[in-house]
Amino acid sequence: MNDIARKQDQGLVVLRTISDLRAWRERLRAAGKTLAMVPTMGALHDGHLELVRQGFEKADAVLASIFVNPTQFAPHEDLDAYPRTWDADLEKLTALGTQAIFYPSVSEMYPDGFVTNVSVGGVSGPLEGAHRPGHFDGVATVVSKLLLMALPDAALFGEKDWQQLQVIKRMTADLNIPVEICGVPIVRDENGLALSSRNAYLSAEQYKIACALNKTLFAMAEKIRAGQDHETVQRWGVNEIEQAGFDKIDYLEIRDAASLSMPCDKALRILVAAKLGKARLIDNVAV
Amino acid sequence: MNDIARKQDQGLVVLRTISDLRAWRERLRAAGKTLAMVPTMGALHDGHLELVRQGFEKADAVLASIFVNPTQFAPHEDLDAYPRTWDADLEKLTALGTQAIFYPSVSEMYPDGFVTNVSVGGVSGPLEGAHRPGHFDGVATVVSKLLLMALPDAALFGEKDWQQLQVIKRMTADLNIPVEICGVPIVRDENGLALSSRNAYLSAEQYKIACALNKTLFAMAEKIRAGQDHETVQRWGVNEIEQAGFDKIDYLEIRDAASLSMPCDKALRILVAAKLGKARLIDNVAV
Repeated sequence: MNDIARKQDQGLVVLRTISDLRAWRERLRAAGKTLAMVPTMGALHDGHLELVRQGFEKADAVLASIFVNPTQFAPHEDLDAYPRTWDADLEKLTALGTQAIFYPSVSEMYPDGFVTNVSVGGVSGPLEGAHRPGHFDGVATVVSKLLLMALPDAALFGEKDWQQLQVIKRMTADLNIPVEICGVPIVRDENGLALSSRNAYLSAEQYKIACALNKTLFAMAEKIRAGQDHETVQRWGVNEIEQAGFDKIDYLEIRDAASLSMPCDKALRILVAAKLGKARLIDNVAV
Repeated sequence: MNDIARKQDQGLVVLRTISDLRAWRERLRAAGKTLAMVPTMGALHDGHLELVRQGFEKADAVLASIFVNPTQFAPHEDLDAYPRTWDADLEKLTALGTQAIFYPSVSEMYPDGFVTNVSVGGVSGPLEGAHRPGHFDGVATVVSKLLLMALPDAALFGEKDWQQLQVIKRMTADLNIPVEICGVPIVRDENGLALSSRNAYLSAEQYKIACALNKTLFAMAEKIRAGQDHETVQRWGVNEIEQAGFDKIDYLEIRDAASLSMPCDKALRILVAAKLGKARLIDNVAV
């Protein structure tokens, strides 16, 4: 029985403490194996599973973390309502051959006396940063911690949270965290809706409205490629999304893909956040 | 020739880039050697050299870093005047058998686009934090970076910067940086003056005044141990230091040794910062 078969035979390990995670990581390192990490908040859908699959392309072993991080939710947001589906998550990760899940408690992550904050300027300011004060501080801090606990060779994040991905790339570069950050393209359902744990909040009727989001973004990208000016395209997009039946558009912007600043001559990204009932949906496309 | 002798034979390596530092660290790790790191701003005195000596007690190899970190100086402070003594530093570190110096440029540490900040709440607020706005953000950020570049097993810091030591301990614990932070007792000269690169700013006359600082602190600790109340002892200390000829006392406080909050029933530390001509001197003693 070779090493990988033996690992699979042992099944998936659930690690609840940082010291157990570090001991597991140390054994992996001693065996000469590389590690890819997939940080999640659980409620796993095929977008997350694609991260795991891509993780296996990057490294010998995949570690998923499941932690609904309270510090990245503002007081009025959906921390308590955020879907928790542990049994299904465990089953999905086991089926993919994931070697370990890190599933810490809040007090394991933030023990009494915790006071440190990692803050990324620039890229975390506009869009999500403007609409969710403190959100990216919470993300940057928890991702720093997770990366430094596990010291993976690579960590994978979905492009659905495009701005988050840019914040994490900036943060790991600036703090010299020794890891490769990999963005993985958005997984969409048969109607193009970006998979999201928060899609669980949508009624059947809201689902139909939600699908207008991606159709509008793709059409906008097409119009820009066809040479239409950004302002006209942006106004057109806002109108489309409003007409579709969304309650409120937080933003719909055409931005520099890496810095999220106003468009320059580099690669562009169109990003949107809009509210529909209890759900706040985000999506983005390349131009 | 054994491994250590061969290393000494190769002499001290000066690493100017992060990639050279990482390659050096990787070779050390591959050889199964542990590493102690001594982050400094150069202008080395025997206090720094004691950190190196203690580093050799902790690990197989010692890496010193020399970087006058601009982000921990406020605009009105002594960044430009801060003493730079590279040739003497190199000689001292070589004599101790230090294996490597990391001596990066400012642009290597903070390339264009750098925007990330590490901030430690609580312990970094009072005392130095109140008198040097932004100082501990600069310290926490640069120390995070240095530790994550080199991934040492241990890192050593002098107790002269007592509050800095507590900030760094808190920061590494909170961010789960995998390193042991070791405080090393203050090295004092024959008159008890805490060694400091900034002592170079003192004239012969100012030196005599400066020595009142440590004498006052030790006397205060004695009075507290003898049962005198903190307020009386603090007022006595302020008067002593003023009478000695200091220009200004930034603070003289009796605090909880770990949290730097107001005294509780745990270990106490007396901390002082006072200005004398161009020098701002700090010192502290245990009660």
